[in-house]
Amino acid sequence: MIKASVIGATGYTGAILTDLLGGHPNVEVRALTSASYVGRHVGEVFPHLREDGTYVEYSLDVVAGSDVAFVCYPHAEASRVVAQLVDAGVRVVDLSADFRLRSVSQYQEWYGFAHTRPDLVAEAVFGLPEVYRADIAKARLIANPGCYPTGMLLGLLPVAREIDDLGVIIDSKSGVSGAGRSPSEKTHFCAVHANFAAYGEVGHRHTPEMVQELSAAAGHALRVSFTPHLLPVERGILTTAYFRPRGGSRGADAWLEMYRSHYVDEPFVEVTERMPSLTDVAYTNYCRMTVREDKSAGLVKVFTVIDNLVKGASGQAVQNMNCMFGFREAAGLERKV
Amino acid sequence: MIKASVIGATGYTGAILTDLLGGHPNVEVRALTSASYVGRHVGEVFPHLREDGTYVEYSLDVVAGSDVAFVCYPHAEASRVVAQLVDAGVRVVDLSADFRLRSVSQYQEWYGFAHTRPDLVAEAVFGLPEVYRADIAKARLIANPGCYPTGMLLGLLPVAREIDDLGVIIDSKSGVSGAGRSPSEKTHFCAVHANFAAYGEVGHRHTPEMVQELSAAAGHALRVSFTPHLLPVERGILTTAYFRPRGGSRGADAWLEMYRSHYVDEPFVEVTERMPSLTDVAYTNYCRMTVREDKSAGLVKVFTVIDNLVKGASGQAVQNMNCMFGFREAAGLERKV
Amino acid sequence: MIKASVIGATGYTGAILTDLLGGHPNVEVRALTSASYVGRHVGEVFPHLREDGTYVEYSLDVVAGSDVAFVCYPHAEASRVVAQLVDAGVRVVDLSADFRLRSVSQYQEWYGFAHTRPDLVAEAVFGLPEVYRADIAKARLIANPGCYPTGMLLGLLPVAREIDDLGVIIDSKSGVSGAGRSPSEKTHFCAVHANFAAYGEVGHRHTPEMVQELSAAAGHALRVSFTPHLLPVERGILTTAYFRPRGGSRGADAWLEMYRSHYVDEPFVEVTERMPSLTDVAYTNYCRMTVREDKSAGLVKVFTVIDNLVKGASGQAVQNMNCMFGFREAAGLERKV
Amino acid sequence: MIKASVIGATGYTGAILTDLLGGHPNVEVRALTSASYVGRHVGEVFPHLREDGTYVEYSLDVVAGSDVAFVCYPHAEASRVVAQLVDAGVRVVDLSADFRLRSVSQYQEWYGFAHTRPDLVAEAVFGLPEVYRADIAKARLIANPGCYPTGMLLGLLPVAREIDDLGVIIDSKSGVSGAGRSPSEKTHFCAVHANFAAYGEVGHRHTPEMVQELSAAAGHALRVSFTPHLLPVERGILTTAYFRPRGGSRGADAWLEMYRSHYVDEPFVEVTERMPSLTDVAYTNYCRMTVREDKSAGLVKVFTVIDNLVKGASGQAVQNMNCMFGFREAAGLERKV
Repeated sequence: MIKASVIGATGYTGAILTDLLGGHPNVEVRALTSASYVGRHVGEVFPHLREDGTYVEYSLDVVAGSDVAFVCYPHAEASRVVAQLVDAGVRVVDLSADFRLRSVSQYQEWYGFAHTRPDLVAEAVFGLPEVYRADIAKARLIANPGCYPTGMLLGLLPVAREIDDLGVIIDSKSGVSGAGRSPSEKTHFCAVHANFAAYGEVGHRHTPEMVQELSAAAGHALRVSFTPHLLPVERGILTTAYFRPRGGSRGADAWLEMYRSHYVDEPFVEVTERMPSLTDVAYTNYCRMTVREDKSAGLVKVFTVIDNLVKGASGQAVQNMNCMFGFREAAGLERKV
Repeated sequence: MIKASVIGATGYTGAILTDLLGGHPNVEVRALTSASYVGRHVGEVFPHLREDGTYVEYSLDVVAGSDVAFVCYPHAEASRVVAQLVDAGVRVVDLSADFRLRSVSQYQEWYGFAHTRPDLVAEAVFGLPEVYRADIAKARLIANPGCYPTGMLLGLLPVAREIDDLGVIIDSKSGVSGAGRSPSEKTHFCAVHANFAAYGEVGHRHTPEMVQELSAAAGHALRVSFTPHLLPVERGILTTAYFRPRGGSRGADAWLEMYRSHYVDEPFVEVTERMPSLTDVAYTNYCRMTVREDKSAGLVKVFTVIDNLVKGASGQAVQNMNCMFGFREAAGLERKV
Repeated sequence: MIKASVIGATGYTGAILTDLLGGHPNVEVRALTSASYVGRHVGEVFPHLREDGTYVEYSLDVVAGSDVAFVCYPHAEASRVVAQLVDAGVRVVDLSADFRLRSVSQYQEWYGFAHTRPDLVAEAVFGLPEVYRADIAKARLIANPGCYPTGMLLGLLPVAREIDDLGVIIDSKSGVSGAGRSPSEKTHFCAVHANFAAYGEVGHRHTPEMVQELSAAAGHALRVSFTPHLLPVERGILTTAYFRPRGGSRGADAWLEMYRSHYVDEPFVEVTERMPSLTDVAYTNYCRMTVREDKSAGLVKVFTVIDNLVKGASGQAVQNMNCMFGFREAAGLERKV
Repeated sequence: MIKASVIGATGYTGAILTDLLGGHPNVEVRALTSASYVGRHVGEVFPHLREDGTYVEYSLDVVAGSDVAFVCYPHAEASRVVAQLVDAGVRVVDLSADFRLRSVSQYQEWYGFAHTRPDLVAEAVFGLPEVYRADIAKARLIANPGCYPTGMLLGLLPVAREIDDLGVIIDSKSGVSGAGRSPSEKTHFCAVHANFAAYGEVGHRHTPEMVQELSAAAGHALRVSFTPHLLPVERGILTTAYFRPRGGSRGADAWLEMYRSHYVDEPFVEVTERMPSLTDVAYTNYCRMTVREDKSAGLVKVFTVIDNLVKGASGQAVQNMNCMFGFREAAGLERKV
């Protein structure tokens, strides 16, 4: 049994992590920190989580002694706490964007802050187990991927070398929980219900993460045009990706077979012939996908679905922990959360 | 006052037409035909429509004497009735696909039936008033556009000549009413609620209509790759369109200005800087749109929203009627329906 | 043409009033006041309202000269402005609760503030046209009823004298727009979607208004037990009311006939045999209802539906204005809003 | 390990049972029968169920040898199969209504069929473990309660002897999955979304089951007036129950304490002070409830929530099986399903 803590445990991702860790066969929860709910029991705030601790204020003392800490702080706020914990010998899975980009200057460009720990940026491992499993096992610091990049990358990595120089078009549609628990005009029920729109139509912050990892897989720089949309659902992201295959048409079956063989051993990726939908994977850590060829237009279309809060955040964080500590990769992730 | 009839008045489009005609200042309703509700009053079946007639069985006799008839029959079933009415001297707005395609052989290819009236196919006018207003005024037979093509074409016609040879990618998201009133596994509340998926991912029947009209506007053949998705909402289509501009970057403002000047006199097209959403236009005949340039990816993105049952069907049908009979084009279409 | 102003025009009720007045044949809008949107055009904030003024800060000067003002302020804040306007000779329709209760002491008990204008409390007319039409015509100050009381009272007034001494049980279910436009944890999409719960289970503030008016109609004090619930919809209230008939069973048809004859001349009340549902009346000023007898339990059940923002607020306010100025009672209220 | 079969495994309740049994530590699935999906694998029809068998056609042979069979057939069709299985020595949990009512003549009155096995009606045990746990342990045939009665009875059994002679008013609100998987006009997304209405307003078939069991607990006949409503959600029932306490006011705390002590040892009943909501219990086997006193109206109000498909059907069926075979009562029911 290892000891795990959650820093910022009362947002959506923190709550799901709390539940996953509370039900994990190899984990004992050490500290759950919260700014707003100090002293309150988990069950008062979130009915039915599988963990019944009490929220405490964050300090190094209450977390020290943990084998691993999950940091669920906003971008730019996380890095200070992450650094403090890593320096103190606690392995960290950071759910913010603060260590996802390899180029230090990009934090200024995309997130508007000067990163003070280039050493940790260099050391951090991008936490997509389907790619970096071996590095994750040895890492002190995991940069857990963003929700949109997770679904997009899993859908394109098998064909990264086939994408022509025009790059990819990523049309993503996400549920409202991606915007977090804080109430705003944009998340008011009456603004979202029966509605649908794009947002962040050019230059969404998840773009550089997509470019970085897709280009790494392709072996050369690839362009990504990313457009997120807001769905009137709570959970899930469906991404429709379009690219022109460098080698021309292969036929639908060949593409499907390429995907199947790429992911044959993956516990959480499922390639299907039929079209996946959000409820196929809601509340689970699965990514489900299919691929089609539009021969007359010279395009390949890839469709992936994930639960943005599970495979797109907290479930993937636990999957990373499982890799870090040599547990079975699906441990604690078999069931709906 | 002209006399108008609705053939197939108890599907979604027929019901909205009934309401629009019932409230139209220049129209008197002559006959409302229905297979399932013969003898029943409108108010029993649809509360609050602005028309209180009784449904009758279709025959040429009950419709003859109408100045115009709206045919709301399924594809392949409509053409027989449409032909009968036109032959009898009734001007027709056909809401089916049976006269939308100019090439007779395409009906076999895309809709699976051999068209028996090539003369009427040749004569029919595609009912998009923003393009064919002058022809519509003189037409005996209007082929009312499909819901997806309406939003897509309005969004791309201003730039048809700017689209490069790779063509356009059309990622559309539609509400459930587009599937019609007949219950099925796919329209069951529990299948749609909290869910989202693509369907007809390659080769959807609205594709040839898009190709035909966009190519006509461009002056040469253009490729269209169309992917529809099903939203958990009742009303509306949002289309996200992607293309590479033949002449390269112009900057966002220039594209916006091109759209604004193209549509400056249109009563039902609104070009805005801010992102449109479904509820902006729900229950109205408006199409609202904006345009963005993703310079780093070399792409232009266009976003359009319509109500699939109004501008995408019945409202546009009334707009066509207004053009045919010289009424003010917005007559009867000012308010929510 | 009269001149009308809306005080607090950018909440939900203010926006709908703005639309209704903008489309009203006998009204010219004088001032639209707002705390948050001063200087902005209506169309920027609310697409498609039928009025295109600019929001101004409230002052007596900008409103003076209006024939009527609609006050859309929160409870306890409204009374000061209402008094100022009435004293200045402007007739007022107050959408808050500040003049609904006839007993001055009840404001302290139920709303927590000491009322400073008992003279206006005594003068105000309760704005339910179906009961107080004649008084409304002459009134300087109308207290527009609450949304829950409107549906409940219309459903029980025809039988007020038949209710036995145990009184009535009112089980109401409301859409989220009843909670207003301000974002909160309770109106977050993720809190409401796929959910349902009761709130204010004992002692909701609309109770004394129900007791006052139902007792007045009965001619003696009646007890009301009111329980509101929150539905995952934007618009509408369905109220299920239960009472034991003083005179015992009459049979379902007799009850229905009693309702029909009571409301035979009302423009906005519809008694139907079939069960009404929220979408029957959404976006309209109608109240639709039916009645059932549960003979074996000795109970009568009444079901009413309204749109909480129209007949439950802004539409009813316009209906009151129509009565005050001698316009046709349905003027400006025929269409969806 | 016991052997269990599901008869009619491809409706909503059958699918959830399949999942629960597939993940149950003490159960091996023997046969899954289906009329529509013979020969197809579970995973093709329902993604992510924890069981991967193949559907077979029903026959006594394929089920014989099971220790227990769950029958998920419609009312009136179930009894024949149930009788055949019990006669063949298979213990049965019947999810239909065919053995819930103790009086044989009631089947004719409420369900319109003449029951041919009064012997089994007499022998069947009503499967509410919170009441009949001891009898269930020994039973050959369990009549699994209806979804509405489950939530209603759990909410009123602690106070059955306190209810006065006027009986109880039961105002229930259910999600759409209660209507089953078959598509119909009433379950079409566009009919339910953004809507709400009552149905079966007098004489719903679940009434006699409520009367039978509540009267049994009270020790004398009690009247029940039941009104179900349809919510635009997939899962859950919230029941609001009203009664007048025989002994007058006790104060809210005393009622709450009475509930807490009644259910102190129950694994699946939770009494809370705060108001429960549907998502508290969605996808779980829990029933959560609270109680309020409306002193001025002389009423007690009870609020209960369950998931209609889990505690209201398949979860309770597994809980019954656990009682029948001496397993831990919560075995296989700890997690979301």
